[in-house]
Amino acid sequence: MNGGEIQIGMIGCGVVGQGVVDLLANHRETIHHRIGAPLAIKHIAVKNPRKTRNGISPSQLSNDPQKVLTDPDIDIVVEVMGGIDPARGFVQSAIQQHKHVVTANKALIAEHGHELVASAQEQDVDLMFEAAVCGGIPILRMIRENLASDEFESIRGIVNGTSNYILTQMESQGWDFDRALKDAQKRGYAEADPALDVNGGDANHKLTILSTLAYKTLVSTDQIPTEGIEDITLEDIELGHRMGYHIKLLACADRGASGALSLRVQPTMIPLNHPLAEVPGVLNAVQIQGAVTGPIFISGEGAGGAPTASSIVSDIIDTSRSLLRGKPRRVAPWSVDQEHLNAVRIQGLENHHSKYFLRMHVEDKPGILAQIAQALGHYEVSIEQLYQRENAQAGNITVIIITRACRERQLQSALVQIEKLEGMGDAPKRLPIEPSPE
Amino acid sequence: MNGGEIQIGMIGCGVVGQGVVDLLANHRETIHHRIGAPLAIKHIAVKNPRKTRNGISPSQLSNDPQKVLTDPDIDIVVEVMGGIDPARGFVQSAIQQHKHVVTANKALIAEHGHELVASAQEQDVDLMFEAAVCGGIPILRMIRENLASDEFESIRGIVNGTSNYILTQMESQGWDFDRALKDAQKRGYAEADPALDVNGGDANHKLTILSTLAYKTLVSTDQIPTEGIEDITLEDIELGHRMGYHIKLLACADRGASGALSLRVQPTMIPLNHPLAEVPGVLNAVQIQGAVTGPIFISGEGAGGAPTASSIVSDIIDTSRSLLRGKPRRVAPWSVDQEHLNAVRIQGLENHHSKYFLRMHVEDKPGILAQIAQALGHYEVSIEQLYQRENAQAGNITVIIITRACRERQLQSALVQIEKLEGMGDAPKRLPIEPSPE
Repeated sequence: MNGGEIQIGMIGCGVVGQGVVDLLANHRETIHHRIGAPLAIKHIAVKNPRKTRNGISPSQLSNDPQKVLTDPDIDIVVEVMGGIDPARGFVQSAIQQHKHVVTANKALIAEHGHELVASAQEQDVDLMFEAAVCGGIPILRMIRENLASDEFESIRGIVNGTSNYILTQMESQGWDFDRALKDAQKRGYAEADPALDVNGGDANHKLTILSTLAYKTLVSTDQIPTEGIEDITLEDIELGHRMGYHIKLLACADRGASGALSLRVQPTMIPLNHPLAEVPGVLNAVQIQGAVTGPIFISGEGAGGAPTASSIVSDIIDTSRSLLRGKPRRVAPWSVDQEHLNAVRIQGLENHHSKYFLRMHVEDKPGILAQIAQALGHYEVSIEQLYQRENAQAGNITVIIITRACRERQLQSALVQIEKLEGMGDAPKRLPIEPSPE
Repeated sequence: MNGGEIQIGMIGCGVVGQGVVDLLANHRETIHHRIGAPLAIKHIAVKNPRKTRNGISPSQLSNDPQKVLTDPDIDIVVEVMGGIDPARGFVQSAIQQHKHVVTANKALIAEHGHELVASAQEQDVDLMFEAAVCGGIPILRMIRENLASDEFESIRGIVNGTSNYILTQMESQGWDFDRALKDAQKRGYAEADPALDVNGGDANHKLTILSTLAYKTLVSTDQIPTEGIEDITLEDIELGHRMGYHIKLLACADRGASGALSLRVQPTMIPLNHPLAEVPGVLNAVQIQGAVTGPIFISGEGAGGAPTASSIVSDIIDTSRSLLRGKPRRVAPWSVDQEHLNAVRIQGLENHHSKYFLRMHVEDKPGILAQIAQALGHYEVSIEQLYQRENAQAGNITVIIITRACRERQLQSALVQIEKLEGMGDAPKRLPIEPSPE
């Protein structure tokens, strides 16, 4: 602090960083009043300090992060550069310099949150990362503070806006995956390298953070079985719709009766009357089932500069208040509280219990459906519905089966047999089906 | 405090109060850990202390609120008796005794929040009332804390579960208002005197609190034009549905381009593709349009013992933390901050700009539609759609008109003329129409 002013240093200043600068400027008085002291951005470290930036004077800029990390006047470091390295070192170094840190870096928190939170607790500073999950939806705060007295039976989320945009466009425009992805890139929704968006990695990061906080346990990214949307075809979407479903990339956490936690990121068939089925485009949505509070559904803009910046500024306000109180939050509303982590068993996908949607391409010859049914029956997977249609390619049919609820491992065992059947085309595809709302 | 334990006194112990007792008992360890100190309920003042209550020993009970209000060991007073008097005096007295107060009393906060918050600030104690609005949905915290850096273009809410249940049952079961109301009472959703639920009074209280906090201004209950659902008929619902709408009791706040605030509680026609149209039964939902964050939609259980109790316990946890820090929150996330109230102009309903749904019963004779159209045209109200159908009562027709967007006062002027037309039956009914989502 300097003369009663809270001083902020920023590392990175892309779309989100510029959004933070704009918000702090546009709401200067409101924020001053809410905190009880003025805020000022003292220094911003960026790759290219020569670039002209709105509302930022050249003297505030350099390409040297150390100017932020070692300045004793800087109270709060805002990390918006993204990526794990070197961001990890910068955040760790800021904490060691007794600076509070606000970050939007989901990969960093998902992969190294444990170590960073431990350091922050040791140094009695705040580490805030609301903006890392679902941009403008204050979901971490809701889970840790607003629903503090509740326990969560399940969490379901559409947490990757890019995937959701692609799936929405495929369904509404009849585009294939590649065309929808290109459109998402053209509109700035997907990165030049969209891998983490479409392979489920980004959703995995968010579910790692969400479930760590909601279940007060340590979840690591590799404990979450993760499938992306790259293999979803227009045919899957069309046939899903015919059977009464939309396909969404869902991040799910379920606390079973045994207390075990089941986590997964998977493209999932959602019944058309389900609230998550109707979340379009780049929106995010999360459905929480609280043991006491009941169902809560929240949707909003999950990404984009403005909502993410707004979330960062809320964190800055909160941290500034605890700074003025002279005490860190210690039990920060959404820090991982390392001393009291629950020992929760995380169960593998093989135990997941669900109805499934199966899609197979097979030669149109007598007996093959009977063989498929037999393989499923052998592993006690019951068929609830079966639908077949001829394909453009003569002599080939597409078979859709909706199973009754079974374990993933039963289904996988049956699929191993089914894949070997004579006349079977490419590998059968299976997607879990979300139950209809009651 | 007594021996490091935070002591709670309760006034009232109905369904919500018992829910608080149960939650504090069932989550004792988690809550202890979250706060950093144990909580204990020292005393509960109730009407009938002889009644056996789950988890409460007879020695904790009396029928004397002063035992709660004057006990120096009691840190936090939880007021769950409801009603304005004598609750108002009890809360005021608790504040004067330097006790923090947590309440679920929406009528009290809507009517006297201003004076109570001023007292709490004077005495440096917290006054918390998250549970007063939308039970399990943490909407006040979202507005004041999570979205602290944003400004709200509009707030739309289905905030009265009883009304929503009645309207849902009328539509899905084809019941008339009286039958649906009786059903709601039988299920315990409506009070024996359901007046405040169905006349919009309860929604008015909630919107008073919501808009006071969201717009940092002082709103009083009588500044909100309020209409209930008592006059909604099955015919309105059926014809609304035929035109593509559900009827919902909506509480609305809109910040116009001029900065003026428009507030109202009205049964409203909601397009079927609107997220608020699909909120069924006793659920509550709120849609916020943030200038920066964009649209946020949240739904959940708005009433009932458990969600409301959960919300109270979250407030107790928060207050306990500030108590242990030795400092009140002062700028509590959802207290009305009296020193910095905005001077916001609240505009009357006559300026409301909207499409309208009009329902008229008229004699089936030539020329009457032309006269209606002429009256509307005279006040520059354009007709977008017109539909008429014959009634069971021969010689009578029902006319439905969907207008283009106009001011309420234009429409009211036209309706004054229309009411006087020869052949007009009972008073025409008008309901505003919510715009379709983009």
